[in-house]
Amino acid sequence: MLKKVKIALIQQSFKSSKQETVQKTVNMIEKASKEGAQLILLQELHQDRYFCINEDEANFEKADDFEKDIIFWSNVAKKNGVVLVTSLFEKRAVGIYHNTAVVFEKDGKIAGKYRKMHIPDDPGFYEKFYFTPGDLGFEPIQTSVGKLGVLICWDQWFPEAARLMALRGADILIYPTAIGWFDEDSRVEKEKQLDAWINVQKGHAIANALPLVAINRVGKELDDKKQINGINFWGDSFVVGPQGEMIKQASEDKEEVMLFDINFNENKEIRKIWPFFRDRRVDSYTNLNKIFIDN
Amino acid sequence: MLKKVKIALIQQSFKSSKQETVQKTVNMIEKASKEGAQLILLQELHQDRYFCINEDEANFEKADDFEKDIIFWSNVAKKNGVVLVTSLFEKRAVGIYHNTAVVFEKDGKIAGKYRKMHIPDDPGFYEKFYFTPGDLGFEPIQTSVGKLGVLICWDQWFPEAARLMALRGADILIYPTAIGWFDEDSRVEKEKQLDAWINVQKGHAIANALPLVAINRVGKELDDKKQINGINFWGDSFVVGPQGEMIKQASEDKEEVMLFDINFNENKEIRKIWPFFRDRRVDSYTNLNKIFIDN
Repeated sequence: MLKKVKIALIQQSFKSSKQETVQKTVNMIEKASKEGAQLILLQELHQDRYFCINEDEANFEKADDFEKDIIFWSNVAKKNGVVLVTSLFEKRAVGIYHNTAVVFEKDGKIAGKYRKMHIPDDPGFYEKFYFTPGDLGFEPIQTSVGKLGVLICWDQWFPEAARLMALRGADILIYPTAIGWFDEDSRVEKEKQLDAWINVQKGHAIANALPLVAINRVGKELDDKKQINGINFWGDSFVVGPQGEMIKQASEDKEEVMLFDINFNENKEIRKIWPFFRDRRVDSYTNLNKIFIDN
Repeated sequence: MLKKVKIALIQQSFKSSKQETVQKTVNMIEKASKEGAQLILLQELHQDRYFCINEDEANFEKADDFEKDIIFWSNVAKKNGVVLVTSLFEKRAVGIYHNTAVVFEKDGKIAGKYRKMHIPDDPGFYEKFYFTPGDLGFEPIQTSVGKLGVLICWDQWFPEAARLMALRGADILIYPTAIGWFDEDSRVEKEKQLDAWINVQKGHAIANALPLVAINRVGKELDDKKQINGINFWGDSFVVGPQGEMIKQASEDKEEVMLFDINFNENKEIRKIWPFFRDRRVDSYTNLNKIFIDN
């Protein structure tokens, strides 16, 4: 009764335009599909440069294409016969925009979507300017290959998000991401940041006995407002198993189609050996609903 | 305004008796104190062998000494002028026993206690037979060196426990532990278990921007009922910083007094750079109070 799924993640850099970037993505999806991938995962806001590098209201126009983007990626999923996790800039109404993962079935139908719940904001990552925090909660998306716990980037620092997906029966945690280094930081500082990023996610995998995939972009992108010296997106997309064991990791500077098999039933077996879910103290977790408990 | 604290953890094996084991611990505390330790951390149920290796009602007698144990360790803390985190078998009433950390001030007064909230139970670790789950919640203990987020062993697999301590203002997470390998497992499997144990705790450190210490026992202990072939407690006590970076790690098979400095204010600085606490979606965490969400 084992259920093995062949998965591909696509780690990419931004090309000179959305059109060129999307064409490259489509080529890589076709390659992955030919190699047998049943589920293909794209990085955060994969159609474009990481425009949140500064605050510019002109960028809201990019979301005008949300409906067209959906039709486009629906066709890509259908043509390749794969379940496809995309990450798009959603226009919901003028003044309400979301950072949204849209998941397509292999027949092109929308399986579901997830609107990024935790929104970051720090120099070079001005997401609170662009995105209204999600209002769909932490709901895994049922697909023909399994129940996908799709979260996005900043969510990966919050154990609550991973846990809620697990409690809803997710088979896997999936994080499209755009994270990188600043040139000003030392190599030691950069390694510390990268390690923390990997380790916090290993923690979610272990605590929930779920495989976990992070898909990050690569390459340097400049700030056209020249407030910062750009971001070096650090790649290093990876997949870990339900005990946090590293299964495969991409390079820090190259585009890659990374293929791997995941057995979606393995987590259930681990939960018999390490039965954390049996013992949660749900009678004593109420304060998790608080921002802080003042003295 | 930096606040550096010198900490010692004591990683020990069980001797032939409680008396001999306790004497060794006292000697190691004196050594640590002479080297300047202000806060000394002991492993889980450090006075004795890990008696939960099987279910034997005769073991409840061990808890009859709880009040005597408190007087004893109070005197040790006072004599050495250190804040001391002990891990004792608490008799509360006949039929109600707890796995309890008692924290002593450097003047010997009780600073507070924590009763283990998450209780494990699997072959060789029959804790549900011995311990009533704690009813004091997740409350850090205020001491003269800082606010100690003391949790115990199995708690370390639950992100909720670490988070609740952080929301209550803990300066550090501290896990007295008794975890080990079975001889039957391969070296690869053993490494996977050890790595998962370290990584899940690194995850708590990172998600909460808190330093974290785990204190484990070493040495093989046999099962006098011969149901299992004993447990090889794997040592590897460690301390990580608030980005999950390994600061120091003990051996897997030797007794050690491990000394290190921790700056209890460093976490606050990290929280400005990585402001996870700002962005928690407390409006959407209610389901964390559920055991599972059935379809």
